[in-house]
Amino acid sequence: MKKHIVVIAGDGIGQEVTAVGKQVLDAVAQKYGHEFTYDTALIGHAAIEATGNPLPEETITKSKASDAILFGAVGHPKYDNDPSAKVRPEQGLLGIRKALGLYANLRPIKLFDELLGASSIRPEILKGADILFFRELTGDVYFGEKGRSDDRDTAYDTMIYSRYEVERIARKAFEAAMTRRRRLCSVDKANVLESSRLWREVVQAMAPEYPDVVVEHQFIDAAAMLLIKDPRRFDVVLTGNLFGDILTDEASQIAGSMGMLASASIGDTTGLYEPIHGSAHDITGKGVANPLASILSAALMLDISFGMKAEAEEVVSAVDAALKAGYRTRDIADADTPDDMILGTEAMGSQILTQLASVAENQVV
Amino acid sequence: MKKHIVVIAGDGIGQEVTAVGKQVLDAVAQKYGHEFTYDTALIGHAAIEATGNPLPEETITKSKASDAILFGAVGHPKYDNDPSAKVRPEQGLLGIRKALGLYANLRPIKLFDELLGASSIRPEILKGADILFFRELTGDVYFGEKGRSDDRDTAYDTMIYSRYEVERIARKAFEAAMTRRRRLCSVDKANVLESSRLWREVVQAMAPEYPDVVVEHQFIDAAAMLLIKDPRRFDVVLTGNLFGDILTDEASQIAGSMGMLASASIGDTTGLYEPIHGSAHDITGKGVANPLASILSAALMLDISFGMKAEAEEVVSAVDAALKAGYRTRDIADADTPDDMILGTEAMGSQILTQLASVAENQVV
Ligand SMILES: [Mg+2]
Ligand SMILES: [Mg+2]
Repeated sequence: MKKHIVVIAGDGIGQEVTAVGKQVLDAVAQKYGHEFTYDTALIGHAAIEATGNPLPEETITKSKASDAILFGAVGHPKYDNDPSAKVRPEQGLLGIRKALGLYANLRPIKLFDELLGASSIRPEILKGADILFFRELTGDVYFGEKGRSDDRDTAYDTMIYSRYEVERIARKAFEAAMTRRRRLCSVDKANVLESSRLWREVVQAMAPEYPDVVVEHQFIDAAAMLLIKDPRRFDVVLTGNLFGDILTDEASQIAGSMGMLASASIGDTTGLYEPIHGSAHDITGKGVANPLASILSAALMLDISFGMKAEAEEVVSAVDAALKAGYRTRDIADADTPDDMILGTEAMGSQILTQLASVAENQVV
Repeated sequence: MKKHIVVIAGDGIGQEVTAVGKQVLDAVAQKYGHEFTYDTALIGHAAIEATGNPLPEETITKSKASDAILFGAVGHPKYDNDPSAKVRPEQGLLGIRKALGLYANLRPIKLFDELLGASSIRPEILKGADILFFRELTGDVYFGEKGRSDDRDTAYDTMIYSRYEVERIARKAFEAAMTRRRRLCSVDKANVLESSRLWREVVQAMAPEYPDVVVEHQFIDAAAMLLIKDPRRFDVVLTGNLFGDILTDEASQIAGSMGMLASASIGDTTGLYEPIHGSAHDITGKGVANPLASILSAALMLDISFGMKAEAEEVVSAVDAALKAGYRTRDIADADTPDDMILGTEAMGSQILTQLASVAENQVV
């Protein structure tokens, strides 16, 4: 298969980790006989420095012309001290999501056995959890009308959803469930909210098209409990923008190791794949950043944008194997990790490439 | 001190557990020289059976004339099979909250060392956690305007808060923080929501009146993470109706033992104190219900409505001592609990009364 990928490394450790993510994509292409071509584009602080614009027009053009985007991070500490800055790195990310119509945020929460110790949750409750969140990204109370009364004493926001907005993300969630364990949990607050009742109506109406998918509906408060009580009960979780914001952050904390978490923002065309960790300027340029979230973002790209399920699974298995072999980056090492097993960004990348190669040999045997 | 208490036992195990809660109040009154008088009133299914009304006028009158309400539970399985029933037990609880202007829901999450094993969270993260949630109860998206477009394809709800609504609950939260560890965390989504910006404005404006209270603001998504990552960092948590609904349920799950959790609904006059467990008809009348949540609700009444801090702490200590002595009700027993340490409702009540008496002896010595 031929695919064209734009690498938008952005700021801070984004540069270092996407370089490794790209190496992994290359290794997969070579092994499976795919042809991946690449371009690069600017965003965030890097783009502001070069062009004055956090999202240059050229970046949008290149992105639209690509099959997928491997994204790094945006952000720079100089803006933290200047909250009034009109031009900010983060505008680049919000802008590209809008330009590409990325209405669904996907967040896989996949627990690697070797890292169970990093979570606050007991390992026996967590082990084997594997959840894929679909959070709606362009609607809800974030974008509804908001305002104040003239006397400034009353403030309001509008939670709002239209049928087509729910339909398009619900369809993606059902399709994903079909390639996984065929369970879909839709989260809303339909006992109270009209927008949730519409949400539930749409999901219920779509369910008969996917008779193999077991659908359940949970209220957001119950879902926030169940995620802690029994994370393994979830497969695909589908929810709105606000409830998704809360649940995916809660779930990241349950997973424990932020440096391991990938995400995707997808719409009807080009998808964008990125680690959930930020630009981490405190460790930028030191060669110690954990590249595994970028590697797992690449795996997500293979799976979601290219439909290369086997290739994606092989990348995830390679990460698992490197962890099982005892290799760690600094952020996921613990007191028991021997010094010589704590690797830098490039060395961890090499381990994953080695694992990918050795899986191939095993398959040949 | 003279206090008049209405016991509204309601349905199911509400009867059994409030009987024990009342015994504990009596023991406290006797020991500290207070004079507590009691009345009873009907609510829920019990009230429907007797009068046809889940909230008889007499119940409201008696409640308004009291200093506090010890509440049991409402609910009956016969209504679960008939979702269209016009008259329902739950209307009693919603109605009395409204009649008494109960705008703040208080939920203490206090972890007893002996029960740490019941949580999904690792004991070393949880041990010592002691949080008091203040959830606003009469505003927000639950009560704002909601509706559908004529074509039924767009649905909306309105999140809305007025300054006075935030002020009155914020004041109660600050006052409570002053009697505790003097930390207040206000949870909102002020980076996105106008109603949250008003919320934060009010809390910030009030903070200078309480210079001893360390105030922090967290976004709801960050709070949902921090509650798992480091529950001990929280003392008083103040938040709106929707975010409070989610966070208090998440926190109950962190605590693990639902049968141990008390709550209060308060306004500017009479407060209502109740376990968070429901009517539990499956075990009603068997004498096995856990009375500790009702006992802890009584302790909360002593603390919040009567300002009897020492008395309240003594009740909590008595519960702690009974647990440390190894006594359990069935719901909080585990595989290691010897059969003869698993007590019924009344026997567990007697243990608490015994502990209260023995604390007295220790104090005399
Ligand atoms: Mg968030
Ligand atoms: Mg709830």
